[in-house]
Amino acid sequence: MKQTAYSFPVIGIIHSCFKEKFGIPRQPGLAPLAKAQLELLSPYNDPAAVEGLEKVSHLWVQFVFHANEWGGWKPKVRPPRLGGNQSVGVFATRSPNRPSPIGLSVVKLDSIEAQHGKVILHLSGVDLLDGTPVLDIKPYVPYVDQVSEAVNLIAADAPNTIDVVVPEYLQGICTEYQLRTEIPPFAIDYTNFATRPQACLPRT
Amino acid sequence: MKQTAYSFPVIGIIHSCFKEKFGIPRQPGLAPLAKAQLELLSPYNDPAAVEGLEKVSHLWVQFVFHANEWGGWKPKVRPPRLGGNQSVGVFATRSPNRPSPIGLSVVKLDSIEAQHGKVILHLSGVDLLDGTPVLDIKPYVPYVDQVSEAVNLIAADAPNTIDVVVPEYLQGICTEYQLRTEIPPFAIDYTNFATRPQACLPRT
Repeated sequence: MKQTAYSFPVIGIIHSCFKEKFGIPRQPGLAPLAKAQLELLSPYNDPAAVEGLEKVSHLWVQFVFHANEWGGWKPKVRPPRLGGNQSVGVFATRSPNRPSPIGLSVVKLDSIEAQHGKVILHLSGVDLLDGTPVLDIKPYVPYVDQVSEAVNLIAADAPNTIDVVVPEYLQGICTEYQLRTEIPPFAIDYTNFATRPQACLPRT
Repeated sequence: MKQTAYSFPVIGIIHSCFKEKFGIPRQPGLAPLAKAQLELLSPYNDPAAVEGLEKVSHLWVQFVFHANEWGGWKPKVRPPRLGGNQSVGVFATRSPNRPSPIGLSVVKLDSIEAQHGKVILHLSGVDLLDGTPVLDIKPYVPYVDQVSEAVNLIAADAPNTIDVVVPEYLQGICTEYQLRTEIPPFAIDYTNFATRPQACLPRT
């Protein structure tokens, strides 16, 4: 009898600027300034385990789509990318509603903090919800992972950005949102805002 | 109390030309002609679940390193890439000996076979052991997954190939190996053989 399921430990947790699913970029890299910290959990928080990572610019993060309340899957999904009214096989998409809800994101590794018993990887370009459990991290290996001849006709290009001018009074609503979601005060560049946030950075 | 582990179903199984760990390419894409079939298992073998995949040239396969007999992990590993005598943090490598032994390979999707209650994806460029349990498949999305600015100084380039001239009498040993491992007879191009197999194709 073959094993029909496998269990994996949570090696780390994401501390992210995205406190709600709403507003998270659909893919990593779309909001290059979106920051997160990946904190390794005991017993995986051994500084030796990340030795050499400073030679690597980008990481694969394999994580759990933990905020998928439904938790089930259907053979066909309606990805937002296709306007939400066209259905396609779940395995042809990156939808979180999949049999094994394991997410895969490539993110930029900005720096590594290993002190006082903590190991924290500082990431940017994330599309990761705050509190996301991480199963594994791997170095991006360009000569393997950059498949120059790859074609994907379902999602051929990055979604368009739309320049949005945000009236000053709306900043109050943003502040209310920040307070409600307990995000530290933001410094948002309203002069270059888009339908997807370009940045969510603590004000310095 | 946070959940410390997650369980995922096996959605498919790999039927591969690689019947033993020995000789498997270190990464996908290194042996472009190495073939495998990914057979979806019930209840995931619904043709609807792969609809649209024909628009995608490459797939991410997330799989279990099931033949890792030890099953443990250590903070530092000695990857063959570094000659086996230099150690580096496990998270800076793609070593199978990791806390969550989930493998990640990008492979070429040659064709999709969906008939008689079976759904089989024909793959090439694989580095996957026969019998590998598959947890998830995702489409390669070039605009996200091709990170042109990525740098990895541990594994900067593909390993060198070495031209090897194989004497005719050695073909007998190869045949014996094929019989022992129950691989169908091979057509190996001995004129362009390398230390890693360029091909392992059933003879047509």
